[in-house]
Amino acid sequence: MDYILDLKNLNQPDLFGFVAAILTTIAFLPQLIKTWKEKSAKNVSTSMLILFICGVFLWIIYGWETHSKPVIIANIITFILNSIILFLKLFYEKKNTLV
Amino acid sequence: MDYILDLKNLNQPDLFGFVAAILTTIAFLPQLIKTWKEKSAKNVSTSMLILFICGVFLWIIYGWETHSKPVIIANIITFILNSIILFLKLFYEKKNTLV
Repeated sequence: MDYILDLKNLNQPDLFGFVAAILTTIAFLPQLIKTWKEKSAKNVSTSMLILFICGVFLWIIYGWETHSKPVIIANIITFILNSIILFLKLFYEKKNTLV
Repeated sequence: MDYILDLKNLNQPDLFGFVAAILTTIAFLPQLIKTWKEKSAKNVSTSMLILFICGVFLWIIYGWETHSKPVIIANIITFILNSIILFLKLFYEKKNTLV
């Protein structure tokens, strides 16, 4: 089987990188849930989301070019989560303007 | 002189990584400015900020252990920006509760 990360042979820096990648990826899940529940992300900066999504997209290309699966996978998840947050923010803003 | 990145000898993947790092770092500046101006970050998730700051802290350790200056520097800036956003969020929440 083709494992993403060989956990048994993980050295110390890799372990830090692995946990770091998990944390900076799943961090956006509570933001997504909060935005969904509150039906607003008024105080979340649109510029931040756009710049961040563009940056994360470039990280995916970087991961692809350097054949780094953890970089690709972590950034694809981050890309999806942040794109949904941006979509929800703009959707609720439009909806709230129309009401 | 000890350069952080040798821009002249940058190959293509490194260039993507370099621009990606700049984007995912400066992305938090508009959020910081927005929070400062609006005196509120009500819709910004505290859990997101805490998880993200912890993850970024581990990225700094990872950069330190792998002797990667760009990883260290980009993440120190991200760490500082997000810590200020978290501080401002909690500060304004406390202030608004007291008023």
